[in-house]
Parts: sequence; C-alpha cells; structure tokens
Amino acid sequence: MLLPIEIVVGQYFRSSTRQVVGKFHPLLFESRLLFSPIVAARRLLYLSSPSSLPNKKTLSNWAYKKINRYKPLYVEKIMAELDPKIAAELEPFRQSVKEQGDLIRQLKADNAPELDIKKAVAELKNRKTQKTLQLAPPDSGFERAKMEDLIKRRFFFDNSFAIYGGITGQFDFGPMGCAIKNNMIDLWRKHFVLQEQMLEVDCTVLTPEPVLKASGHVERFADLMVKDLATGECFRLDHLIKAHLEKLASNSKTSDEIRQECQSIVTKLDGLSKEQMNEILQKFKIKSPLTGNDLSEAIEFNLMFSTMIGPSGQVKGFLRPETAQGIFVNFKRLLEFNHRRLPFAAAQVGNAFRNEISPRSGLIRVREFTLAEIEHFVDPSNKSHPKYETIADLELNLYTACNQMDGKASEMVRIRDAVDGKIIANETLAYFIGRIYLFMVKVGVDPKRLRFRQHMDNEMAHYATDCWDAECLTSYGWVECVGCADRSCFDLLQHTKTTNVKLVAEKDLPAPKIVNVVEIVPNKGLMGKHFKANAQKVMTRLSVLDESEIKCIEQTLNDGQNEFILNLDDENKVTITKEMVTIKRYEKKVHVEEFTPGVIEPSFGIGRIMHTLFEHSFRIRQDDEQRTYFALPAVVCPIKCSLLPLSNHNALKPFVTRLSTQLSAADISFKFDDTGSIGKRYARTDEISVPFAITIDFDSCKDEMVTLRERDSTEQIRMPIKNVVTIVKELSMNLRQWDDVRNQYGIFDPSQSSSEPPSSSQ
Amino acid sequence: MLLPIEIVVGQYFRSSTRQVVGKFHPLLFESRLLFSPIVAARRLLYLSSPSSLPNKKTLSNWAYKKINRYKPLYVEKIMAELDPKIAAELEPFRQSVKEQGDLIRQLKADNAPELDIKKAVAELKNRKTQKTLQLAPPDSGFERAKMEDLIKRRFFFDNSFAIYGGITGQFDFGPMGCAIKNNMIDLWRKHFVLQEQMLEVDCTVLTPEPVLKASGHVERFADLMVKDLATGECFRLDHLIKAHLEKLASNSKTSDEIRQECQSIVTKLDGLSKEQMNEILQKFKIKSPLTGNDLSEAIEFNLMFSTMIGPSGQVKGFLRPETAQGIFVNFKRLLEFNHRRLPFAAAQVGNAFRNEISPRSGLIRVREFTLAEIEHFVDPSNKSHPKYETIADLELNLYTACNQMDGKASEMVRIRDAVDGKIIANETLAYFIGRIYLFMVKVGVDPKRLRFRQHMDNEMAHYATDCWDAECLTSYGWVECVGCADRSCFDLLQHTKTTNVKLVAEKDLPAPKIVNVVEIVPNKGLMGKHFKANAQKVMTRLSVLDESEIKCIEQTLNDGQNEFILNLDDENKVTITKEMVTIKRYEKKVHVEEFTPGVIEPSFGIGRIMHTLFEHSFRIRQDDEQRTYFALPAVVCPIKCSLLPLSNHNALKPFVTRLSTQLSAADISFKFDDTGSIGKRYARTDEISVPFAITIDFDSCKDEMVTLRERDSTEQIRMPIKNVVTIVKELSMNLRQWDDVRNQYGIFDPSQSSSEPPSSSQ
Repeated sequence: MLLPIEIVVGQYFRSSTRQVVGKFHPLLFESRLLFSPIVAARRLLYLSSPSSLPNKKTLSNWAYKKINRYKPLYVEKIMAELDPKIAAELEPFRQSVKEQGDLIRQLKADNAPELDIKKAVAELKNRKTQKTLQLAPPDSGFERAKMEDLIKRRFFFDNSFAIYGGITGQFDFGPMGCAIKNNMIDLWRKHFVLQEQMLEVDCTVLTPEPVLKASGHVERFADLMVKDLATGECFRLDHLIKAHLEKLASNSKTSDEIRQECQSIVTKLDGLSKEQMNEILQKFKIKSPLTGNDLSEAIEFNLMFSTMIGPSGQVKGFLRPETAQGIFVNFKRLLEFNHRRLPFAAAQVGNAFRNEISPRSGLIRVREFTLAEIEHFVDPSNKSHPKYETIADLELNLYTACNQMDGKASEMVRIRDAVDGKIIANETLAYFIGRIYLFMVKVGVDPKRLRFRQHMDNEMAHYATDCWDAECLTSYGWVECVGCADRSCFDLLQHTKTTNVKLVAEKDLPAPKIVNVVEIVPNKGLMGKHFKANAQKVMTRLSVLDESEIKCIEQTLNDGQNEFILNLDDENKVTITKEMVTIKRYEKKVHVEEFTPGVIEPSFGIGRIMHTLFEHSFRIRQDDEQRTYFALPAVVCPIKCSLLPLSNHNALKPFVTRLSTQLSAADISFKFDDTGSIGKRYARTDEISVPFAITIDFDSCKDEMVTLRERDSTEQIRMPIKNVVTIVKELSMNLRQWDDVRNQYGIFDPSQSSSEPPSSSQ
Repeated sequence: MLLPIEIVVGQYFRSSTRQVVGKFHPLLFESRLLFSPIVAARRLLYLSSPSSLPNKKTLSNWAYKKINRYKPLYVEKIMAELDPKIAAELEPFRQSVKEQGDLIRQLKADNAPELDIKKAVAELKNRKTQKTLQLAPPDSGFERAKMEDLIKRRFFFDNSFAIYGGITGQFDFGPMGCAIKNNMIDLWRKHFVLQEQMLEVDCTVLTPEPVLKASGHVERFADLMVKDLATGECFRLDHLIKAHLEKLASNSKTSDEIRQECQSIVTKLDGLSKEQMNEILQKFKIKSPLTGNDLSEAIEFNLMFSTMIGPSGQVKGFLRPETAQGIFVNFKRLLEFNHRRLPFAAAQVGNAFRNEISPRSGLIRVREFTLAEIEHFVDPSNKSHPKYETIADLELNLYTACNQMDGKASEMVRIRDAVDGKIIANETLAYFIGRIYLFMVKVGVDPKRLRFRQHMDNEMAHYATDCWDAECLTSYGWVECVGCADRSCFDLLQHTKTTNVKLVAEKDLPAPKIVNVVEIVPNKGLMGKHFKANAQKVMTRLSVLDESEIKCIEQTLNDGQNEFILNLDDENKVTITKEMVTIKRYEKKVHVEEFTPGVIEPSFGIGRIMHTLFEHSFRIRQDDEQRTYFALPAVVCPIKCSLLPLSNHNALKPFVTRLSTQLSAADISFKFDDTGSIGKRYARTDEISVPFAITIDFDSCKDEMVTLRERDSTEQIRMPIKNVVTIVKELSMNLRQWDDVRNQYGIFDPSQSSSEPPSSSQ
C-alpha cells in the first residue's frame, strides 16, 4: 500500500546558514523533493479523490509532465484533525508515533550512539507522515489549473522575460499582483511598524563579503551539487543520492545486504561529508537521472549571488540572502536613535536573493523575493512584553514539538496557556506569534488553514531558544510563510567578534556596585610609531579584551616573556611588546551593566503569503464554472471599486464625471467600464477581485441614487450618490463591514431599476 | 581671474546606454568632475561669500580634504536670473554666448568639418558657464556641514556597513529616512499611478544578458578607465586625460605647440577611441595623479554589476541598471490587460544598480538607488492628452535648448505657450512636465529652485524627440532629479528585433482598405524535419519579415537560386531551400493597422529628490544656532505628531493612554516623549521633523483641552481633546492647512497653562 505523505514546503527564507549551523528535522527535507516524480505521484495518490485513483505507473509518467500545473488537485481539510471522530480513527497511528518518540527520548537519555538515534528519528518521521495525512479524504475541490489560468490571463504575475524564453525562479508582478503586494506591505507596516512604533530601516542589497563571513553565510550557506558532464545540468547531491538509493532499495532484484546499506546511507545522509558523498557516487555508479550521462564530483554551491563592487575587482560582494544583517550591522545607530533604551524592534521590507539550484512551485521557491523582517531586541533576562495581554487569550492552532514527537495532531491552544505551560518560550515570542496570526487573518489567510509549528530540537540552530513557523495549507502542502524565532544573542556577537565593535546595551543596576576592573592600557605613542596605520585597529582590539584574556596576557608577561601575540581577526596577528601596554587594576563603582541583547525575529515571506492568499481566496461561481474570481479582503484588493454606467448614454455622463472626481480625490482606486452587458462587466471586475461596484442607471437621474454591489455575495443595495464614496472608502479600509451597510440600506432587486433613458433627456 | 562655473550634477539615471547611443552636451560632463580638487576649489571661490575669499593655493589643499563636508557653502539664488537688473548686468555675457551659438548654427548649415563644430561647441560651453553663474552673490546661508551633522546624528541615513569600514556609494536609511522615502513613494503612487490609473508592475532585478544586449546596455553602458599598476586604484580615463592636459596647458613652461595640441585633444575627447586614448596616455606619459605610479592600458568598464543566474554558471545576468526594461519586455501583457487600448502608462518603483567608478556626493551618485519610472505608450501620430487642460496654464521655469544656445537665462513660461510655440514637443510630454512639477512641489521641493532644462540636440539620443530634465538647485549645483523624455519607438523595436516577438498595437482605420499582402508560408513538415528543435524559431522569424525582405527573397529564388540565407539573430543564420517555403500574394480587406507605440518616459531618482528635500527644508532657529530641523511638508514627515505630557504625573496618564489609542487607530504615526523640559522635547522632535505636537498639561484635567503646536511657526493653539486626532490627521494628509486651523481656534499663549497638578489628584 502506498501511503499518503505529508508535504512540508518549508525552510525557505530561514534555511539560511543561521540555521544550517544547527540541525534540521529530516521531515523538512521533503520540501526539496516536492517535484520529484515519485513524490509528486505519491502526493497525487493521496490528494486525488479516492474514487479516481489511477495506477501508479501511468501516474508517474504523467506526473512527470508538470502534473501540478494541468490537473486539478484537492486540498485536504486541516480541521479534520480537530474533529473527535477522525481523531479516534487516527489513534493507532498516533500511538505508534508516540512509542517511537519515547524510544528516541530514551536513547538520548542513555547517550546511545548517534547513528542509532538517527535511525530512530528516521523511523519516527516515517510513522509521523503515515499518521498526519491519514485524514478524512479531501472533499473541497480546489482546481489549481483554473487558478493559474486566471493569474496568467489577468497578469497577476507571470514568468519574467517570457519573450526571451523566461528564467526559472523569477516572476514579474503585473498591475493586480503588484497592487496586492503593495497593499499587503502597507498593511504590514501599519500592523507592525506603526502599531508597535518599530524603527524601520532600508539597507542596501549589495553586501561586502566580510559581513556575510561573520554571519556564517559565506562558509555555510551552500548546497552540494553535481553536474551532468555532457549537458552541464545540475542536481542537488543529497536529493540525487537519496532518490537513487531509494529506487535501488525498492527494486526486488536488490539483495538484502545492498538494501540495508541503502537504507543506512539514506538515514545518515544529512551528516555525510563531501568526500563520503563522492564515495557513494562512485560506489553506486550514479549517473544523471535525466540523460544517463556521467556526473562531476560533488561541488559546493553557495546559494548567494556574487558580484564585484567597484571598478577594481578587489571588493567581493553578494546580493543579500536575507534582510536581517542590515539591521544587525546598524544596531548601534538604532539603539542610539531609541535613546539607548531597550526593548525596541527594527524592521525592514526588501528584496533578498538566493540562487536556488532548481526553483519551482510558483511564488513559493524563487530566486528573488521580498522579505519583511523584524528584529526585536530585548534584555535576555526579561522577555516579558507590555502588550502581551492584548493577545494572550487568542486561541491558535499550535503544532508543538512535543505533539510532533508524540505523534499527536496540532491542537487549538490559548496563547496564555501555551506560555504558562512553557510551550512557547516567553511572552515576547508569544506576543509576536499572536500578532502574526492577526496579520495573516487580516490579509486574507483562511484561519482554518493556518497553524503554528514549533521547531523540534534538531531543526533549530544551536543558539536558538525556540522557533515557530506560521504554516499555511496549500495545494503544495503546508507552506512555511512566516518564521518566528528567538535567536538569542548570536548575530550581534558574531559581528562584534569580527569588527571589535561592541554591540551591547546598558541597563541600570538595582543598586550601584563596586567592581574590580582589570584594564589593558596601550602606550599610544609607541603603538602609533610601531603599528602606524594599523595602530587604531590594535588599540580597538585591546579595548574589547575581556578579563580572562587580559589575565592570560598578564600571566605571559609575568612569566618573563617580553611580548605577546594578539589576534586582530581570523587572519591577522600582531606581536605586542611589554613596553607598549600597562595592565591596570582598580576598583570602580558602577551604576549600569552592559549586556548583549537577545533577538526575537519574525520574518515574513511576502511571495509565499501571496501564494496562500490566491489559493485561499480562489472561487468558482456555483452557477457558472467559467466565472472564477479571487474573494480577497477589500483592504488588499488592487482596485477597490468599479464604476459602471448602465449604458454610455449622455444622461449618465455627469454622474460618471462626478463620481470619478470624488473617488480620485478620496484616493480610492477604481475602474471605469462601459462596454458590454452589466453581467459581463461584473464578471470581468470580479476576476481582478474588485470588491464593490457602483452602477449608475437611468433611475439615478431621477432619484440621485446608485446601486452598490458586493463581489462575494453579489448582493446589491441602493443608496444616495452623495454617500456612496464615503461608504466605499469605509468598506475598503475595513472600517465598516458589508453586513452593516446592507442592514442600513436593505437588499435591492436590480430588476426594479430602469434600463430606459428618461424621456426628457437626449 | 578665476571665473565661477556652473555645476550640473546630471545624467545620473539617464546616462544609460539608451542615451549613450546619442551624443551628450559636454556641459553635462562637469558633473563627473565635481570633486576634483581644482573644480572644488573653483566652486568654492564662487560659492564663498566675496568678503572671505581665501587664496587659491590654500584652498586647493584644503579643498582636497573633503571641503564639502566641513565648510559652510552658500546657495546661489536662481531667482536672480529672473530679476531685470541682474539680467541687464548679464547682458554682455549673453551676447557673447549668442554670437557663438549663431556661429555653430552657421557651421552646421555649411556642413563644416566636425572638428570645427566641436571646437565651436566647446567655446560655446565656456562662454555659457561664464555667463550662467555671473549672478548676484549668494546671500542666503546654507550650511551643509550642519545639515549633514543632523542627518547623521538622527540617522536619517548613513554609510552602509560602517562597522565594517563602509562601502562608498551605498547608504542605509535609518527610521526617519526610510519613512520619508516610503511617504514620498506613497505620494508618488497616489499622484501618478492612482490619479492616472497607470498599470504598476514589479519586475525582477536580475536580468539575463540577452535583454540588456537588446537594450544596448551590454555593449555601450561602459566607461573607459585605467588602473594604478601598483595600488589597483581606478580612474575614469577621459577625466584623467582632461585633467592632465588642462594642467599641462596651463603650465607657463609649456610650449605653444604643445598647449594647442592639449586643447585640441580635450575638445575632441568625447569622440576618441580606446586606441587613441591609449596613444595619448603613452605620448604624454600620464601617471597616477595620486601616487605617480604607472597606469594600465585603457580598460572598458561596464557599469552594470554582473552575476551568474542558476547553478550551472552558464546564464550570465546583470543587476538592472534601470527599471524601464522590465516594462518594455512586458508590453504585450500590459496591452492585453488594458483591453488592447492605447494610450496607457505603466509604472514601476524599484531598485537599480550601477557600479560607479568613484561614487560621491551623498545620495546624488550612488551604486544602488530607487527609481520610479513611467512608460506612457501612445500612438506616435497622436500625442494629444485628454487631461492636458488641467496643467496647461501652469507657469514653469523653463530653460529651453534655444535659450541655452542663445546664452539667455531660463524663463517663466506658461505650458500652453510652450506647446503652442513648439518649444515642448507635444501635449503628452507637456502634461507630464506639468504633473512632475506639481509632484515636486507637493513633496517639498522649493519651486524657486526647480527648473526644467531641455536637452540640446547633441545631448539627446538619436531616436529621442524631445527631453526635459527637472533640475533642482542644491549646494552641489543644479541636480537632475527627474528626466522626462519622448523616446519614440526605440525600445520596443529593439526587443522585437532580438526576440522576433511583435510589440505593436492596433488601431481602427477610418475606413476599411484593400491591401496587397505578400506572405512567406513555410512548409511546416519539411521545416520540422530539417531544423528540428530550431524549426519554431525559424518559422517565427519568417512570420515577422517585412514586405521588402520577402521581395528580396523572392528575387533570390526567381534568379534561379535554390536557397537563401535567413538571419535568425545577430549570431545565427540558417539556409532555407526553395522547397521549404511558398511566397503568396493576395488582396485583403483590413479594418485596423498595426503600429509600434511611441514612449514618453518620466523617470524619478528618489534619492536625488530626497537630497533636494533635505537641503530645501533645512532650517536653523533664529534664536538658537544649535537648533536645526527639517521643515518638511507634513505629508512626507516620518512621524506626524508627538505626544507630550507636561510631566509624568499620574493625573496626565489617562489622557496619554486615550490619545495613544486614538492615534494608533487612525494610523497616525506619533512619538511619545515624557523626559526633559518641554522646550527640549520640542527641539528633539523638531530635529526629526515632527510637524505637530500635542501637549497635555494640568489644565487638560479640568477643561479636556490640549495644546497643539506647529513646528515651523512654533505657534500653539488650544482645542478639545476629542477633536485633536481628527485635526492632526487632516493636517498631516494635507486636507487642511495650519492657517485654517489656527484661525478656527486662535493663537494660545502657553504661559497661561497650569504647570501644577490639580490639588485633588495624587
């Protein structure tokens, strides 16, 4: 039996070095496999309605031909997990997962060999995936092909440079996509920057190498790949090996010994070195899966785009792979701007770039994307939040690490309970999770298809305290759209280490205290003479030595040495003689203490949220399959209202002019359309998600009233012309709801309106 | 006598290949020389007040040490040019310029040798610069050092990666700079995109090479440079040669013969080839001006940042040097979106990148910058504009090509008169010039320091019809902030040529007409067999051949040849045999005709406009030199209001909470500040340009009234708490003016307010 699997499309904008230094939960690697024919086929088996399961062979071939673009798929219902009946059905699976989770805990407690733990984790993953998707069969139809047709036809977005053959992983947003994106960002700014009085910055994309060396990206932000020696086609090495060995293992002709070896390699794949992977390539004679050609040896492929800054070719730079570093390197200025007070948050909206080996899945995995990131700097010893109470009673769908380990489903949990129960690490992290939830729902994410998944220990970077992803359920599976991590003091410390610039804050002590200071005082004259241009750098380095380092130097000098070696940075050392420094010890009364702030980082992938919005808001009219539209919330809609005179009769023109002028003056985007039947015009404007339509008919000439139609309900009401612009503005700014307006004016039957021009007019 | 010179800092975002294919007016090259010590010194001589002219030698040394950062400069008064008295004084200069202009016209009419014309143009330029700045001595003090101190101190913006030593030509915007930028862009969207119903797009930065080959950037977007062989330091070659030869020519020991040769070379420098420049380098033994080291041969340095897209290293790409190409390559989709109707405008706001050889002058010349560009597509035979009347009566400061040639000053001209007099080429171009003016004034550019300068014939690209720059007067001279060009059909034709995709629109003919069609019909089967994967490309190419090309092929085949050669693109050719094609001729009744739209392109340099805003709004309080601030219009101000309780006494807290909540709910950015004297708090918030301050005092507890203070006038009024949020909102959205609000409530004397808590409160 081929079991359905869970697909997590994740780790997009956090699969940066900042996390690669830690370990991932293997489940997340599913994302990279998303479009391998096998996975696609397995997915389809699950996602198709059970009555129409095709046989596997046909499917594999067919799936290979971009199955996801041209065939309707079905969205599973997450809420099924919360249904007690389904929960009961899932119980055996849960139990099996829980047993395995317990085994792992035991192995860890016993300090079992790492390989054993890894194998157990792989088994846990296996059971977990069997469980999680053993849900009720999907029943709500979602037709991705239809949605993609609408997106392309009305140019919400499309492949960049299509007339030149296009480039994978790059998309241009057309007028509607661009407006939705701008509106979302605008809302984001109001929801976060304005409401929380964050310090928004706008830093450069071009980043010199040393900055990204310090952050770890230069060394570790890489994937191993191999090239087809004939065609130059590139493959991600771990995926290639995994696919090859799994195929080999599933071949009935393969011996048990080989099969076991395959399984063992797949289990420990994450931890293998480049050399070990090369050996496997050799041993199993792995060829290109597309052409059968020979492959190159493993190549480390850094995912950053590199370039040269300036004309000399001596300054290497990269396009930033995330916006966060721009905030960290400006920490001192921002702290200063905030009158040296903590906590404060900085924010940045901007483009980041990742040279993905083979980007696919529309807006979900691209090479150029917009991030909206927040870095909230806080005293690590006090992570309470003054506005915590405003979100504490929200109930969210949480998928805790514990539940994942125990094979339990995600659960609706009140934030307060999660914090009290130490499930969410601290109030500030919880506050942001709550605010993220409110933002996502406000822009139009279906709350039933939104969950917060906690990272398991082995997914998190070693320095991170706790990390939650806002994941949205789409036809690609659960897609990570927002990451929210408590990253401790890691980033600031890294930059301090490289630059010798202290990135710290100060706080008042409860009472002044006397401290013993040991200080290394340079003889400036001597230093200048000896080190010349380098002297300042040496002195800066001396000034940031900590007590133990100074003691160590003191010891060296006391031991009769006349000099000591000082590391300026990773590459440069200087020799300092006894005469150049004096070591001073004294007592000092201090009122403040210095500390490196902790960082809590909510990080939003704008493109991924947009993809989710499109899927969650895609609708087909019940009475007409051809009439598709996006039921987006008015606040993100590209155009807020359409202006439709019943005909282009002169009698209606003064009303059009009057309303156009008023709408423009009120900064309401609108679309005037006077061609075709009113029904066709509604359909056309529905397609681009225009939420409200003002229709002017011949009765308007008599009673100065117009009809206002709402897109989703297609309800119409009639109201005085003089009120309509204000009401559209209130509706589109979410200051008033349609129900409320409808209740005020009552439903109007459009068949009552006059389609004949008044006899008096020409 | 060392004459003052005019400094035009221009050609920033239009000095692209799209213009390099034409010729520049040499005056514009002044910009590149802006910071050479000589020019800086000369500039200072002019810009300093006459009473304090230092001697030239001291100045040159001193100027060399970043004169522009640390010494107050003075802004000249452009309006002086419009003063009749000054005009009279300038008359002799004007006459001398006019004579030279007439001479050039004559030389051109007589088809004189190009070198003679060039020399005459150089002389014209010389006379023109002597004239233009012979204005009244500057009288309004502008202290750039003080402004830059404020910008840095309150982190409006600063050098990127400063803790890593910084990178020239890159800036990070801090919270205030970022908010001003966002507000400006927001206003730009409302003023252009929303009001004109433009189609805004958002295209990718990474651009594959073929696109930029077609646009001409790969071949021509380059400067020649040389490198110091020892240090690697780079110099722009034409500037280096010019500076060297001018120095040589001015040396009294130089022979007349050599001097004349120097002058002759400088005159024709623009037209010299790489080889010729190399010869000059050799002949004059030019060394590095900084170190005296030997220099490399000339290197062509393309100003685009290059990178590789994808893992194979086979797809070369660039960071876009302008956003316009993204619009052109999407023309077909946009036309489709607009229901195939012309005219329409597309717009884009985004970052562009240019690897300047030595970027300086703050935000004016940087390597990464934000552009806001519009491409208005129009039927070339009808460039009228439906909204022309709305701007036709605006009076603008126009500096026509004719006036430049005649040595006249710029003049105030009504747009209607300029169009009627054929000074501005057409209504659409004029409409955008008018809208640009209104936008610039709205965001806070001083209209007296804003002019529109027309390009002279030899500055414009060969295909351009007319081009006007909105230039702002700053302490760097006249800075080009917006370009507005009629670019004819050039860009669309270039992309069509490369891709064989027709980028055309259709228009109805007044009456149907019969046309003779000649068509080349491929034998698809044979083509497919012969050209295989290439067949589609060959057939596409055949389908876009024009009549004359088909006739030429027909002739070849009729002449007994059995085959002909077809150029697929610049690099590939195929041979097509007689059997593969049939040439058909027939009559056809057509109702529409195809045409390539013309393009009118307003292009805004956001950073340059910001620089202008900072300069034009910088103020020093008359009573206190230390109190500096920016008098920005409220609409662009980063924070709209401050909330200042007189003390942190508990009695005032409920008011703070109430107003904070109301301000947040109304999306008004505000700053709460309760530390220090009220005067100090006003000064602090003035610095970051907060336009309004709500002060809560102890009288508020009694009368439910608060004080509202305006930043520029420092006037205060008193009004009910319940009104204040609405009024601040209206004021900050420019819906209401301060004068109006003050007239409603009357001036309030703050000394009347109670600074004592009410006795009843704790």
